[in-house]
Amino acid sequence: MSDPIEFLFDFSSPYGYVAAHRIEEIGQKHEREVIWKPFLLGAIFQVNDQRPLKDQALKWDYSSHDLSRTARHYGVKWTLPEIFPIPTQAAGRAFYWINDQDRGLAKKFALAAYQKYFADGVDIRPKEVIAEVATGLGLDGAACLAAMEDDVYKLKLKEVTAEAIERNVCGSPFFFIGDEPFWGNDRLDMIDEWLETGGW
Amino acid sequence: MSDPIEFLFDFSSPYGYVAAHRIEEIGQKHEREVIWKPFLLGAIFQVNDQRPLKDQALKWDYSSHDLSRTARHYGVKWTLPEIFPIPTQAAGRAFYWINDQDRGLAKKFALAAYQKYFADGVDIRPKEVIAEVATGLGLDGAACLAAMEDDVYKLKLKEVTAEAIERNVCGSPFFFIGDEPFWGNDRLDMIDEWLETGGW
Repeated sequence: MSDPIEFLFDFSSPYGYVAAHRIEEIGQKHEREVIWKPFLLGAIFQVNDQRPLKDQALKWDYSSHDLSRTARHYGVKWTLPEIFPIPTQAAGRAFYWINDQDRGLAKKFALAAYQKYFADGVDIRPKEVIAEVATGLGLDGAACLAAMEDDVYKLKLKEVTAEAIERNVCGSPFFFIGDEPFWGNDRLDMIDEWLETGGW
Repeated sequence: MSDPIEFLFDFSSPYGYVAAHRIEEIGQKHEREVIWKPFLLGAIFQVNDQRPLKDQALKWDYSSHDLSRTARHYGVKWTLPEIFPIPTQAAGRAFYWINDQDRGLAKKFALAAYQKYFADGVDIRPKEVIAEVATGLGLDGAACLAAMEDDVYKLKLKEVTAEAIERNVCGSPFFFIGDEPFWGNDRLDMIDEWLETGGW
């Protein structure tokens, strides 16, 4: 079997941001395609009655420390954006619009949007900010703005989110290799070993 | 600096159970003492308005799968006890009673009590069960029963729990190296690297 690695993430997820810098290397090492699938974590929190990390005082106190340490460890620039977390419809819709044209470019866009938010601290809710990220990759900004209003991409993001709920995705980042689920940036070493050994 | 590794855990914590099988090897590798400190996770959940893992449907669905996989990975026998989670006053008090006599023996007791619960599936709430575990290690069962009713050990467990709350411990297992906090069995590799490199 050579299932791809499915990489589900929300653009407002800090550990997703770190994982986005690491996952392609693991895919290449094991010659597995990585399929990037942004979804809306907020919808899942609603279904599961979960709260964002930042609203859980004790956990957030630890996690903000762990995030800085984890980012330093992997050499990923990290800042806590002033407004966090945020809804990420704009970035998600733009991603699927680019993905329909060029999957590799969509991954570059995802990294660039993530960096805009978590490295530069810029609020990526506005469509104009997302269009600017797309323009920076040589895409047509006006077409990107139109795509974010297009029912096709609104629906696509909703569908991926509904699929995530159906597959019991409970956080971001979340990975699947076939039906095998892995939750968290801190499962990437296990994924590496899973692919190396064929599972256990 | 050669701070010890502080290992805080609740006897009802599955990932604490796995970590208990791994932490001494890391301590030995880096010539660091490991100080075992059972505490009461329920008290922390109350303060932080957190819910046990098992009460969070989506998370528990994933975590029960991840637990089996993690236990297999580290060669640790694992069963989900019929009654889970449980309050762990008896085991915690007995631990500190043994710890006052022999720290090495207390670690053996902790592993044996953990295995009674998570490998054999036996409810370890009853003092009699805990006294039996102690007897199996050559300790005096009647003295162990008395110790679990002794204010000294009731207070000791409360103090360690209060100290954990004060240090923002948000789950089990939790580790400190000096002031540096690490949460989760899945941070043990990072602890290993932290000790190897002196931190980053």
